[in-house]
Amino acid sequence: MATDTVLPDAVDPDAADPAAAGPGAERAAAEEEGVYLQPEVDVAALTDVLDGRYAEVRRSVRAQLAEHAGILEDAETSTRAEYRERVLELVQEMAGTGQTGFGFPAEYGGGADIGASIAAFETLGLGDLSVMTKVGVQFGLFGGAILQLGTQRHHERYLADVVSGRLLGCFAMTETGHGSNVQALGTVATYDAETDEFVVHTAREDASKDYIGNAACHGELAVVFAQLEVGGEQHGVHALLVPIRVDGEVAPGVRIEDDGAKMGLNGVDNGRIWFDHVRVPREALLNRFADVDADGVYSSPIDNPGRRFFTMLGTLVQGRVCIGGAGINAAKVAIAIAVTYGNRRRQFEATGEEEELLLDYGLHQRRLLPLLARSYALHFAQEVVADQLHQVFSGEKDDDVTRRLLESRAAGTKALGTWHATRTIQECREACGGAGYLAVNRFAALKADTDVFTTFEGDNHVLLQLVAKGLLTDYASDFEDLDQFGMVRFVAGLAVDTVIEKTAVHKLLERIKDVLPGGDAWDADAGLLDPDYHLAMYRFREEHMIGGVARRLKRGIDDGMDAGEVFSRVQDHVIAAARAHMERLVLEAFVEKVATLPDGDLKVALNLLCDLHALAGIEADRAWFMEHGRLSVQRSKAISREVASLCRKIRPLAGDLADAFAVPPELLRAPALVG
Amino acid sequence: MATDTVLPDAVDPDAADPAAAGPGAERAAAEEEGVYLQPEVDVAALTDVLDGRYAEVRRSVRAQLAEHAGILEDAETSTRAEYRERVLELVQEMAGTGQTGFGFPAEYGGGADIGASIAAFETLGLGDLSVMTKVGVQFGLFGGAILQLGTQRHHERYLADVVSGRLLGCFAMTETGHGSNVQALGTVATYDAETDEFVVHTAREDASKDYIGNAACHGELAVVFAQLEVGGEQHGVHALLVPIRVDGEVAPGVRIEDDGAKMGLNGVDNGRIWFDHVRVPREALLNRFADVDADGVYSSPIDNPGRRFFTMLGTLVQGRVCIGGAGINAAKVAIAIAVTYGNRRRQFEATGEEEELLLDYGLHQRRLLPLLARSYALHFAQEVVADQLHQVFSGEKDDDVTRRLLESRAAGTKALGTWHATRTIQECREACGGAGYLAVNRFAALKADTDVFTTFEGDNHVLLQLVAKGLLTDYASDFEDLDQFGMVRFVAGLAVDTVIEKTAVHKLLERIKDVLPGGDAWDADAGLLDPDYHLAMYRFREEHMIGGVARRLKRGIDDGMDAGEVFSRVQDHVIAAARAHMERLVLEAFVEKVATLPDGDLKVALNLLCDLHALAGIEADRAWFMEHGRLSVQRSKAISREVASLCRKIRPLAGDLADAFAVPPELLRAPALVG
Repeated sequence: MATDTVLPDAVDPDAADPAAAGPGAERAAAEEEGVYLQPEVDVAALTDVLDGRYAEVRRSVRAQLAEHAGILEDAETSTRAEYRERVLELVQEMAGTGQTGFGFPAEYGGGADIGASIAAFETLGLGDLSVMTKVGVQFGLFGGAILQLGTQRHHERYLADVVSGRLLGCFAMTETGHGSNVQALGTVATYDAETDEFVVHTAREDASKDYIGNAACHGELAVVFAQLEVGGEQHGVHALLVPIRVDGEVAPGVRIEDDGAKMGLNGVDNGRIWFDHVRVPREALLNRFADVDADGVYSSPIDNPGRRFFTMLGTLVQGRVCIGGAGINAAKVAIAIAVTYGNRRRQFEATGEEEELLLDYGLHQRRLLPLLARSYALHFAQEVVADQLHQVFSGEKDDDVTRRLLESRAAGTKALGTWHATRTIQECREACGGAGYLAVNRFAALKADTDVFTTFEGDNHVLLQLVAKGLLTDYASDFEDLDQFGMVRFVAGLAVDTVIEKTAVHKLLERIKDVLPGGDAWDADAGLLDPDYHLAMYRFREEHMIGGVARRLKRGIDDGMDAGEVFSRVQDHVIAAARAHMERLVLEAFVEKVATLPDGDLKVALNLLCDLHALAGIEADRAWFMEHGRLSVQRSKAISREVASLCRKIRPLAGDLADAFAVPPELLRAPALVG
Repeated sequence: MATDTVLPDAVDPDAADPAAAGPGAERAAAEEEGVYLQPEVDVAALTDVLDGRYAEVRRSVRAQLAEHAGILEDAETSTRAEYRERVLELVQEMAGTGQTGFGFPAEYGGGADIGASIAAFETLGLGDLSVMTKVGVQFGLFGGAILQLGTQRHHERYLADVVSGRLLGCFAMTETGHGSNVQALGTVATYDAETDEFVVHTAREDASKDYIGNAACHGELAVVFAQLEVGGEQHGVHALLVPIRVDGEVAPGVRIEDDGAKMGLNGVDNGRIWFDHVRVPREALLNRFADVDADGVYSSPIDNPGRRFFTMLGTLVQGRVCIGGAGINAAKVAIAIAVTYGNRRRQFEATGEEEELLLDYGLHQRRLLPLLARSYALHFAQEVVADQLHQVFSGEKDDDVTRRLLESRAAGTKALGTWHATRTIQECREACGGAGYLAVNRFAALKADTDVFTTFEGDNHVLLQLVAKGLLTDYASDFEDLDQFGMVRFVAGLAVDTVIEKTAVHKLLERIKDVLPGGDAWDADAGLLDPDYHLAMYRFREEHMIGGVARRLKRGIDDGMDAGEVFSRVQDHVIAAARAHMERLVLEAFVEKVATLPDGDLKVALNLLCDLHALAGIEADRAWFMEHGRLSVQRSKAISREVASLCRKIRPLAGDLADAFAVPPELLRAPALVG
């Protein structure tokens, strides 16, 4: 709470006693005197703020999850085969309610609302994550590819069955031999002019499609990514529809292997697929961005092959947005359990009669409350990216640069959200001690199921490199097909100042520095709880890191190193710059959300969280800020003290703030921890 | 490699061409000219260095684990009930080989070598961790308690059966209601003079013993910790032997509940136990440190009840040393898989014909190699604490202060080793991408099984508080029964200088500063690769942090806060000081080990690892060093560059350095990753 305090509209300006004028006026009066008044959190109202535009969708998915909470126990007590069938059953049942089909056009039984489809999917992150993942495979990846890469002929033939869950399918992109490098995959689709067919073939043993959901048991049709070859000419990676099962039996020429037991997500039937000269009709090509006509002539509305590839890959953006949101929600479940436990469990030393509550310990606050604050921050950042996705895919605002920005933001939010899940679930488990280790207390499944989030739908480090490339090349679509080494050479050819000046953060930083006191000494004079100060620090770091990467790339090339060596040496700076960029976007989303709230207790509480999130972020990277002249030793120590002080202020609110995540009690399980 | 280079003895001093005089001379000559010569790592020789004094024991346990590697797959394919039986079978089979009995006297079938028992147990950390844990429960906790807390009557009656694995038992200390606060547990043992028996009773529902290994299925006898009451007088926590099963049936008055599925370690049958006025003869009391005679008179050689309690608890130290070592070994398995994978897997951009190996990427090096270095550091630190344990428990050197130092060091090494396992396994899993997620590749079990290490056998944070208490009270046994609040009051009553001057680190720091150049500016003038510089930095941090805690405690009490509030506010500094202390001990162990090696390639390679470990540690905490005037901005940046440079130097050796851990290939599994 650093900005001016404005009296809320409802206050009677004539009231002499501020307390008599209601809590808003009392607060305003107290703040004018510099007294901190502990806010009261209206949990239901805060849940509404979190639920936002799609509150109705989120509520109904939560109700559905609560109703089917029994699957959390089934997951533990069933064999892998039974669990897979149980998950399938539930996915098909949910398809019947329309909750999984929001992203499809109404004429095929969908809800025709992209934003709603993201909200629904994210909310599934509170429940059994095999169910969520299978929904993602079926409706997001498989159905989404037919919708986005196919044309009317595919839509009409398949979408109604996909949306209803009658036709189950796979999204067969990843290969054993090439994880993140999709452009180099080894499955080939050769056009045979004689029969007007494509011949799909796994060219090398390690070109098998791997980790493919729905492959081991339930998938009948697969979207297969393969190198397209027409008349001896290579056209790069394209997607085709290939039947992999016929009447439940594996199709001729197709070989499928079960991926077997996994660390988690064992309700999803992942598998490997090999194709041995499997023939499909020419029309099986998903031909929105490229086609082969009856004469065997290849054509595409996008001339540049690299751009064509990335346009097709752009459809993946939806999956990334979904996984990021699901990760953030899974983290909320862990926080809800750990905070509730910390508010009930007494430990050690008695003050008066009773032992202290765990959450009264300073260290326990330090461990959990910044993660609580960050969960809020990421929630609001996720809201922004989901909204942008909705705009782009609904055609409300869809141009090349907007798409690039969306892809970048989706990639970065997915990375931050899923790492947050891994870290938060781990910390919360440890904060619940041995009880957290029992399967009945959800951490086991949460931890095992979310683990792969950091590397599937794009490895987080690879995604952050994508973010960095966008920053360094100004999101120009001309460069989207540059590989990392091409990017190195391109950036090395520019003046560093040119790179910096093209970034959005450059102008934002200039602007915010103007509103801070102290001129060039803004970093020393601004209040520690001024959100403009926080924003300026985050923006400064981003700008400076981008400049640093550009400088290092240039120096490396000028020194005669090859692009590969330069990239290898600068890679950690590249990743750090992308992280700094994403952290800036997350903080902006949080600050902007809080600014939209009317004055009152809720705003006070969220401001505390926002301050804690911002300062904990600066504290974690204070070495960098000191190294770059933006933080004195004294101020650095003051920030650490402020973080501890904010934790103490938030501590009495922590239970309500966690309750506002509205995780249905059935999904918390954890009878011994929170019951 | 900063210290003087001495020609190895074997070199012919007359040789004109250094290369002709063998690799040692070539190296020496090159170093004199400041040229870095990449060492060659003799993997077998390095394994011998790691295996140390108990090489034979370690080799035989590894061979045994390799022979029974099939259990890793059984763990995946069996039901929980089958897996538990399989683990029992294997534990009993290993008992037959003598590998689990090194810690017991020869007259009961043991090996009478404490050090060997630690080495054997640590090595089990490479294999199935349920087997390791069940061995720990049976021979370490249950058998160890009878050995350490009991007297001849118990030894003669039980130990031979325990050692052979014929009599299985439990160590029933932890209760549902009180995790780490053993002194407050709620099970009661009341002496009944009429019948000369103890009546063991679970006084409250939440005083059930919980998470007790061997309880759900196999245990027949339990060491039960209970509040001893004799003639209406409370004597604090003592241990008794209580039969919990008779001929395989649960004993009368005993209720047992299965803890059910857990995140991991599902081959161990954990459970809860309630006692309903269960009667055992007076002789069931494990009476080494306290007894009740036939007249119902309580006596103890230790007058102070707190000291008596901590003396009894001291027997736990062995378990902690074992778990720390096992955690470090589990981390090695993860490193071995990830490094091998990073040396095989090609990814992305082609230089020349092929894609780069993952480990050629700077970021990949940064992620894995400091963890590799830290695994070596912790290995050698573990060797020191295991050796100290051997000395104390063999009676070679056993006095009060030595015991306190051992307990502190064991607690801290356990915390660092188990956190290292959690972090390393996670990073290595992510570094192997989706393949790391498949159960066949070991990460699933490694991650799930080791997760609880950080909170069992003492929660890591609680253990670090124990370490800090020792530092602040100079390990004086008068203070060992102080609770945290008592510690606060005690320290607040001392002059800060008094606290600091009593610490061992104070003298060590003074001494090392004298050997560094630059006088008071030692931190600016010393070479970045000088181990004396590293040691001085680590020692400075520890000394300064202890002083900071003492100052803060004093100030808090002087300001009128109660001890609870002061402790809550200073708790993170307490933990940080304990960590700094442990990090110093770990670095010293590594530096000292390397110093004992003859000059040559192996020493060069280990010096690189030691430098990387030391500098990565300073880099990670560089904010603190800058805040406390020990690191300039320029030097901080230079350290980060040096860390990257060391990673590049170690990169070509990484495969050999990981191979030297000698994890049998059968235990790596991971056919797709390392096969």
